[in-house]
Amino acid sequence: MTLNISQALDLIEEYHEKNISKGIPRELYEPRDYIMSLGGKRMRSLFCLLGYELYKEDIETACPVAYAIELFHNFTLVHDDIMDNATLRRGAPAVHQRYDENAAILTGDVMLIEVYDRLIHLKTPHVHDILKVFTNTAREVCEGQSMDMTFESRSDVSIPEYLKMIELKTAVLLGASLQLGAMLAGADTHDQRHLYKFAVNAGISFQLQDDYLDVYGDPETFGKKVGGDIIQGKKTYLYLRAQELLNESERPHFINLYESNNLEETDKVGRVRNIFDELYLPNYCEEAKGGFFNLAESHLTEVNISAENKERLMVFARKLMDRNS
Amino acid sequence: MTLNISQALDLIEEYHEKNISKGIPRELYEPRDYIMSLGGKRMRSLFCLLGYELYKEDIETACPVAYAIELFHNFTLVHDDIMDNATLRRGAPAVHQRYDENAAILTGDVMLIEVYDRLIHLKTPHVHDILKVFTNTAREVCEGQSMDMTFESRSDVSIPEYLKMIELKTAVLLGASLQLGAMLAGADTHDQRHLYKFAVNAGISFQLQDDYLDVYGDPETFGKKVGGDIIQGKKTYLYLRAQELLNESERPHFINLYESNNLEETDKVGRVRNIFDELYLPNYCEEAKGGFFNLAESHLTEVNISAENKERLMVFARKLMDRNS
Repeated sequence: MTLNISQALDLIEEYHEKNISKGIPRELYEPRDYIMSLGGKRMRSLFCLLGYELYKEDIETACPVAYAIELFHNFTLVHDDIMDNATLRRGAPAVHQRYDENAAILTGDVMLIEVYDRLIHLKTPHVHDILKVFTNTAREVCEGQSMDMTFESRSDVSIPEYLKMIELKTAVLLGASLQLGAMLAGADTHDQRHLYKFAVNAGISFQLQDDYLDVYGDPETFGKKVGGDIIQGKKTYLYLRAQELLNESERPHFINLYESNNLEETDKVGRVRNIFDELYLPNYCEEAKGGFFNLAESHLTEVNISAENKERLMVFARKLMDRNS
Repeated sequence: MTLNISQALDLIEEYHEKNISKGIPRELYEPRDYIMSLGGKRMRSLFCLLGYELYKEDIETACPVAYAIELFHNFTLVHDDIMDNATLRRGAPAVHQRYDENAAILTGDVMLIEVYDRLIHLKTPHVHDILKVFTNTAREVCEGQSMDMTFESRSDVSIPEYLKMIELKTAVLLGASLQLGAMLAGADTHDQRHLYKFAVNAGISFQLQDDYLDVYGDPETFGKKVGGDIIQGKKTYLYLRAQELLNESERPHFINLYESNNLEETDKVGRVRNIFDELYLPNYCEEAKGGFFNLAESHLTEVNISAENKERLMVFARKLMDRNS
């Protein structure tokens, strides 16, 4: 049996419904149940089930790990939304808005502890290795978020630093999700390593795609407001690449424009986009995305699974690329 | 070899010095090194070493566990200080004051992950049991903090609820510290259970002592400002017991007084203390503290260790009682 994505998603949602905590005190656990019920793409759970299914058929066995990873991801969202002053999450009030900041801090903490509670109680000989890979990844995700916060107040962020940040903040958890699924199914360390790197590089590629779509996405299908990063003056791949391509005399003008708050929004977005166009940034983005995607593919080649399974992973990765992150 | 407390403390501080993270990014790990270097009584580490030493001599073996518990305790302080709007911690600026709130949230998160990182990498056959006991306790600590926060806005907190809150927020971690030390040294589950209950009940007793000292402590030796809880209108054991003892007609006056912000501080403290005196609250406190201390002692009796070792644990517990928490 090989599941298609929508069947896997059904399985995941079913597992989510069964795992509403209903814990006590309600003040602590209700915000956890709230964020977990807001949905999302469950991308990490999918990667985990997919990784398992490459080696074994009984993919329900991977649900507890897939769920723990999703819980961890949601913990990071709860805390990140406080740090980023985000008011909305998946179209609904962020946890610190729906409840309050203290509830969001403490519920996030207990969610992280629950992740471990679930992983520790897995009935598998791989539990210890799973804990090690997960913990290493969890630490990296914090490091990525720390870099992201620091970048806000720095004017000298380089492109390699930016790539490292998105790798840590987003891509490594995708890598770990695929790896942990495979690990649970008994994959050897060679396959695990290459699956991890496949997903990490695909993850970096998605993130660059996200930066690109923010400027060049189709407003009809993008889901978010096109130009949002420009309006907020966010340091994206496009911004950093533009800074690099502009000469000394043009750069200050561009930075001023990008950081300005007093322009009419459509005007600001239009002017920044004109500069991006003149610098051929869509081509640079394509090149960077393609580079990481090719790297992902080359790692996939190394994995000892059927050509058919490799193709499935590629189709899945491409499908994610076409969605907005 | 049996260490005395000051030798054990030296061992702990030495281990602390060796474990400054110096991690990168510094923005993430510096606040961790900051709070860990602020000192404190290291009470949980001491409990852990003491628990180990009841069964085995090479107490350095217990240092990694003792340190992980201390790290967890400090993680809770970093997040609690945000939630409680506390500006000072151990006489120095709290982490969210010294850095900022975002740094305090994220550094707390990475500290909790580091705790697991350390526990997972323990070289002991008991690692899995240690993880289970620790995780269960960590969850309870969050539940206790949640109850404490909810109590602030509730006017109907009962004494059993208050006792449950201090048990979860403070006492269970002391219990787990002693138990984990013993577990690591190979104690059987019978001994582990009674050592846990000994420390939990002693912990509740300390906490009641702390509430008592806040009102009746000697300003010379108390360390904190006597009357601080009264000034802040904190719901302590004394407050809740007073509410219970006063009759319907006296209660509203007392609550008004206790919650008032417009009285001169010494005046408010004096007036509240008069009411406490009239209600014989020092006696009620003594009785409650004594009850939990006796319960602690009765669990200690059940532990299969030498009379000499039991006496050492009692001396240690009494010493802690005499210090302010």
